[in-house]
Amino acid sequence: MSQFIVIEGLEGAGKSTVQGHVVDWLEAKGLPVVTTREPGGTPLAEKMRALVKEVHAEPLTMEAELLLMYAARVQLVKNRIVPALAAGSWVVGDRHDLSSQAYQGGGRGIDARLITRIKEAVLGDFAPDLTLYLDIDPEQGLNRARARGALDRIEREQLDFFIRTRARYLELANADPGIIILDGGQSPEQVKAAVVACLEQQLCIPG
Amino acid sequence: MSQFIVIEGLEGAGKSTVQGHVVDWLEAKGLPVVTTREPGGTPLAEKMRALVKEVHAEPLTMEAELLLMYAARVQLVKNRIVPALAAGSWVVGDRHDLSSQAYQGGGRGIDARLITRIKEAVLGDFAPDLTLYLDIDPEQGLNRARARGALDRIEREQLDFFIRTRARYLELANADPGIIILDGGQSPEQVKAAVVACLEQQLCIPG
Repeated sequence: MSQFIVIEGLEGAGKSTVQGHVVDWLEAKGLPVVTTREPGGTPLAEKMRALVKEVHAEPLTMEAELLLMYAARVQLVKNRIVPALAAGSWVVGDRHDLSSQAYQGGGRGIDARLITRIKEAVLGDFAPDLTLYLDIDPEQGLNRARARGALDRIEREQLDFFIRTRARYLELANADPGIIILDGGQSPEQVKAAVVACLEQQLCIPG
Repeated sequence: MSQFIVIEGLEGAGKSTVQGHVVDWLEAKGLPVVTTREPGGTPLAEKMRALVKEVHAEPLTMEAELLLMYAARVQLVKNRIVPALAAGSWVVGDRHDLSSQAYQGGGRGIDARLITRIKEAVLGDFAPDLTLYLDIDPEQGLNRARARGALDRIEREQLDFFIRTRARYLELANADPGIIILDGGQSPEQVKAAVVACLEQQLCIPG
């Protein structure tokens, strides 16, 4: 049965590269794959993404940021992920719910129970089957993100914000056997090998 | 001390006219007044309003609609209403939280406790001091709204939706002494007289 696999991590951790490795690995097994990114991934969710990512004159309150993340997520889950899984496709997502717990919970300091309450209210017990968390030193990640171009509203936060976000990522990943921690600070070849090894171990797919 | 007064009701109930009467009454007492509308009322909240009101090819899920309403509301409350009240202004709002309970709860059928949970999570116990609910027969209201021009995404709902919305409005208004029910189906002169009588009775302001 098809699964929902999520790649998580700070900016510059190498999520999109790893998303590509996962897609390649699944497609090499002959499996149909759909990719998503969050926030976004549907026309309406992409408009919500723009509200969250763009730099505005008016401050976006952290509560509105959180609600926009979940509004975009519920659009993506109901209009894209669930139908794709039902049609037998595997879904490989660049970010999902763990990002809200890490960024809005750890980074912004919103109560974790409040985030869980909103999540459960609109998405019930929907969750990824497997999450690969790419751990990276926040400074190293931000340097890579900067090298890619202009930073968005969230990427412009202070280093402290990303240190808190990473700490929450690690705390949640360590407590959940469905989240595999990979070292995103390794060379691209090492990361790829680690991803493939992880998939071979976690997913029992007849070759 | 300044207060937050909200005008509620179905489309075509006459909310903006009544908002004008309330503003006139307060200003005649020499009080500073700020007006708002929901969803919207700040630059970012107006962008969220557009997502909710525009007709899209992609269906907007009822959960995302609810979250967008609260994202817009928290922007308006934190960035506009609370600062205005703190500065001594009265605030007269075209719609507020009761609309979400009536439209998303009554109209769409989302569990009232779930809506309350989201409300409390992001707005705590913030609430209007006084709400004027303009009750109107849904068909009469929709005919007035149609006469004004093209209907937006929510106004295009079937009559049943507005019958359920009105029923929830009445249920909540009858249970809450802070919500005054006015007959929006009366003549403009009668509505104005009823609004003024209500304000004279509810607000103790030295003339």
